[in-house]
Amino acid sequence: MNPVSNIEPTVREIFELALKLDEGKVTTYIPELAGVDPDLFALSICGTDGRTLNMGDTGHMFTMQSISKVLSYALVLEYYDDETIMERVGVEATGEDFDSIIKLDHHKRPFNPMVNAGAIAVTDMIISRFKDEALVKSLDLFASVLGKNEVSVDEAVFMSEYRTGERNRAIAHLLKNFSLLDNPVEEVLALYFKHCSVQITTSDLACLGATFSNKGCPASSVRQVLKRETLQKVLSVMLTCGMYNYAGQWVYDVGFPAKSGVSGGVLSMVPDKMGVGVFSPRVDDKGSSPRGVLVNKLLSERLNLHIFAC
Amino acid sequence: MNPVSNIEPTVREIFELALKLDEGKVTTYIPELAGVDPDLFALSICGTDGRTLNMGDTGHMFTMQSISKVLSYALVLEYYDDETIMERVGVEATGEDFDSIIKLDHHKRPFNPMVNAGAIAVTDMIISRFKDEALVKSLDLFASVLGKNEVSVDEAVFMSEYRTGERNRAIAHLLKNFSLLDNPVEEVLALYFKHCSVQITTSDLACLGATFSNKGCPASSVRQVLKRETLQKVLSVMLTCGMYNYAGQWVYDVGFPAKSGVSGGVLSMVPDKMGVGVFSPRVDDKGSSPRGVLVNKLLSERLNLHIFAC
Amino acid sequence: MNPVSNIEPTVREIFELALKLDEGKVTTYIPELAGVDPDLFALSICGTDGRTLNMGDTGHMFTMQSISKVLSYALVLEYYDDETIMERVGVEATGEDFDSIIKLDHHKRPFNPMVNAGAIAVTDMIISRFKDEALVKSLDLFASVLGKNEVSVDEAVFMSEYRTGERNRAIAHLLKNFSLLDNPVEEVLALYFKHCSVQITTSDLACLGATFSNKGCPASSVRQVLKRETLQKVLSVMLTCGMYNYAGQWVYDVGFPAKSGVSGGVLSMVPDKMGVGVFSPRVDDKGSSPRGVLVNKLLSERLNLHIFAC
Amino acid sequence: MNPVSNIEPTVREIFELALKLDEGKVTTYIPELAGVDPDLFALSICGTDGRTLNMGDTGHMFTMQSISKVLSYALVLEYYDDETIMERVGVEATGEDFDSIIKLDHHKRPFNPMVNAGAIAVTDMIISRFKDEALVKSLDLFASVLGKNEVSVDEAVFMSEYRTGERNRAIAHLLKNFSLLDNPVEEVLALYFKHCSVQITTSDLACLGATFSNKGCPASSVRQVLKRETLQKVLSVMLTCGMYNYAGQWVYDVGFPAKSGVSGGVLSMVPDKMGVGVFSPRVDDKGSSPRGVLVNKLLSERLNLHIFAC
Repeated sequence: MNPVSNIEPTVREIFELALKLDEGKVTTYIPELAGVDPDLFALSICGTDGRTLNMGDTGHMFTMQSISKVLSYALVLEYYDDETIMERVGVEATGEDFDSIIKLDHHKRPFNPMVNAGAIAVTDMIISRFKDEALVKSLDLFASVLGKNEVSVDEAVFMSEYRTGERNRAIAHLLKNFSLLDNPVEEVLALYFKHCSVQITTSDLACLGATFSNKGCPASSVRQVLKRETLQKVLSVMLTCGMYNYAGQWVYDVGFPAKSGVSGGVLSMVPDKMGVGVFSPRVDDKGSSPRGVLVNKLLSERLNLHIFAC
Repeated sequence: MNPVSNIEPTVREIFELALKLDEGKVTTYIPELAGVDPDLFALSICGTDGRTLNMGDTGHMFTMQSISKVLSYALVLEYYDDETIMERVGVEATGEDFDSIIKLDHHKRPFNPMVNAGAIAVTDMIISRFKDEALVKSLDLFASVLGKNEVSVDEAVFMSEYRTGERNRAIAHLLKNFSLLDNPVEEVLALYFKHCSVQITTSDLACLGATFSNKGCPASSVRQVLKRETLQKVLSVMLTCGMYNYAGQWVYDVGFPAKSGVSGGVLSMVPDKMGVGVFSPRVDDKGSSPRGVLVNKLLSERLNLHIFAC
Repeated sequence: MNPVSNIEPTVREIFELALKLDEGKVTTYIPELAGVDPDLFALSICGTDGRTLNMGDTGHMFTMQSISKVLSYALVLEYYDDETIMERVGVEATGEDFDSIIKLDHHKRPFNPMVNAGAIAVTDMIISRFKDEALVKSLDLFASVLGKNEVSVDEAVFMSEYRTGERNRAIAHLLKNFSLLDNPVEEVLALYFKHCSVQITTSDLACLGATFSNKGCPASSVRQVLKRETLQKVLSVMLTCGMYNYAGQWVYDVGFPAKSGVSGGVLSMVPDKMGVGVFSPRVDDKGSSPRGVLVNKLLSERLNLHIFAC
Repeated sequence: MNPVSNIEPTVREIFELALKLDEGKVTTYIPELAGVDPDLFALSICGTDGRTLNMGDTGHMFTMQSISKVLSYALVLEYYDDETIMERVGVEATGEDFDSIIKLDHHKRPFNPMVNAGAIAVTDMIISRFKDEALVKSLDLFASVLGKNEVSVDEAVFMSEYRTGERNRAIAHLLKNFSLLDNPVEEVLALYFKHCSVQITTSDLACLGATFSNKGCPASSVRQVLKRETLQKVLSVMLTCGMYNYAGQWVYDVGFPAKSGVSGGVLSMVPDKMGVGVFSPRVDDKGSSPRGVLVNKLLSERLNLHIFAC
């Protein structure tokens, strides 16, 4: 691939096109997210060589929300064998909304780690493995794959989610009912919401994507922060489940792994090429940013980035 | 990639390993399929250069069944624009069995063209486009992507399916109820079951996979039998939906596009490398051949063929 | 109970109150029903002594639609033993809409004979028992419980339903798939739609209700046209399932057996007291006439007719 | 009706027949219930005149479990108007298991007060009305309708249920998510499980049924402990929903209101005639005692007690 500087004009054009799109609504069910400026928009791209393009409000920090599910799952893949994980959470798309409780009740196991039920089960495994160190270990991993020294939690968002998260609490107790949680529900939810409340910028997301593109090494580094097997599994699940019940359309239209969050962030990555981070607080009814979707779709089309492009 | 001759010892080893597996049961709900010898086993691999490896009962002919859905969909993609197709059938995994009627009833549109409801809707579009020529046109396309001059229909299997296919008939009338079929139900089902009853060998499947791997040109040829855009879309949908509610696990374990049929065939392809055909009549409760699944899993692992291998 | 003449002032008041209600919409999915005058309104009450009150457009004929399900089921109860019937159709409320296909697919048996799936299975049993005489036998029974010499079918409505009934056709083929239909789908549907298209007036409905109230004898007669066991079973199922997923509310508010049809008729009966027929073409989203519901509710309240009134 | 002494030989015969039935299994998901002697069997009948028949282990105390739902609902009906209650819980049969979470999630309101979700919503309303007096008020009402001075809670069963009730906890948090609980989840669940753990004998159940049969007055008394409107509503909901997804079959076979509990108790009542209590710890997969079902079925048949008997 061309170094990112070569694609700058194309990316700039895409950024301007996406800027005109104002579909979607700011998430309000988490009270602390409701106050954000809906017009914020940022796009960052980071090549495997570490060179980065930044456009728009790339200095704005937002919380990872469901994008953190990718990293929780990666952490569990690093420390548990496949068989043990598969007993707790599958890898199939649900065909339902991200916070569905129905499939869980029918199948007695979360469908995949990208929906709330699966991520809560995964969070429980992190606590079982690291006990009191669970939060520290999580934040360490988050920081290292983001290529940073440390990350911090937005405590106001955390409290807001923790206090109002009754649907997630219901899901957690149902997991408990199926013997899929070993730790106390409130402890698991606390860590789950801390993960959701980790603060990032689009530049961080682009670096995270570049780590994935670069065989598990943060861009321009050779330090392997994720095992290659972990990476292959995480990217597989991002591809088939990362965009929830829009995942199939995403593969059809865009064709590389991605994960969105209700705060408006979208993480994506093109194998061997680059990581992409977008932020725009307005999200659609599937919980993804329309601008984020459009940016990725246009990048795929104009730069021929689809995994099955030929 | 190494020419297929270099991988022959590995493939032979995989063939022998899979031969030991005797899980699954021969499909009996289609009476004409029930009589097949359950121990048949064949594996073919065709490189993009047209060189082919054949092991086991590669001379045995069997019917495509759901593998034909890939080609019906390809045909529609060649002749209709995306928007028109999307009104009739989506591209999302269902999280349900392949013959589910529930999702269709809730969403009033088939989830994807790899499940029966979607393939029936697609078949209707073929009839609308080609009228009396619909069967001829279908078989022509089937033949050309298989790299053959012609293909034939197993009329005994066709009659068997057509006479007993009450669930598919229910699905078709429900599609009609939602105004998703323009032609008479019986006419659409007849063509649908003809597609299912096209006879092939594993060698044909491997050639078909190689056409997909080779940018839409049958191996060692430069004749483009499928547009590149068609190919990108077909492979996307095969990847996310081709193995039904096992699709996520397949991407996780194997990581390249595939499609199975209840007669025991499995088609798969590795981008830019090769097509693979397996046949073993015993299928699991998700409608796929366990030997076919194992062969592909081992090929992926031992030859590092996963799309996200690194 | 007082002879019906004593309650005439109360009934008149209720009639006037209901007349003011204009909620609901005329059914349009059956084309032939769409043209009816939405303002028609008729109420008839028939005591067990045969005396009848008639108010409004009681001369207007309309088709029975789902009210016929009560009589098809009664006919089957007269000629088959319980065990045989229970293999084909249950007696539980579905918690779903009247034309739901989902419950059928999950449970592989219709929930009850008051929903379409159940009534179609029941119709098949009538054909199996009476062969070529099935329609004649049905109409004979219909006439005798209505206390008439004969009833006739509205052929225009019949053709309209038969030609457009794709959802019912889907249900019938799914029943066939589960081996719950012994006769050809089209033959079963033809009889089913004939039953739906039998023409009646509210006065007929009131007489039918009175037959039920009067131990199976048409009012003022001692001729037993239905066995007492049949009656007990039919009334039980009308009570728990007759008003579809509004049945619980109906028992709560009204408290005696009833059955509604999408053409706007409502049949009800008070044990040992009277039969009631209402007609008003505007129906709600549960397929029942709001005026019919209100009339029955007020009758129950003002005349203290609830089965658990005390 | 004959005084209960006249029916003693018939009841004795029925008791002996039911004694031979040993279908079902003792409930084990509540650990404290698992240890009960599965062979216990008791039957009590109480006429509206207060005369009582007692057969078998009528001295054995057991916990009410879901039978308490009838009384919680009665209490709410006494203190709230219909409209307010209907906002919180409906009166429709679910067509699903008693502890289903699916219908709640789809409809955002519990279907009826006889399933766990509905009873938990009802319990919340009791707390909102009586605050710190909620338990005392509940037990007072329970005692008065049972015709006793006081009732007591089995604290061991209570703790066992409270500690292990993760599915109910999930349901409660989902109710909270839909703004259907005003009080803290744990407080509501505590009262809910206290209600479930109230200790009774079959004789108590028979007296309770007799209170219902006797227009809300405990047998042989004229003290009205429940309003007549409350009674009509409670009996309606018991009839259509009391036996869960077996309710329709119950009305068909038995034909008078009843409520079962997983500890093996069955409460039933025949309007104007008598109350019936059965206890047998073995329950079927719908949560009802097969002996309890058989006793009621035979009583209905042999004494012609069906509400639509004629």
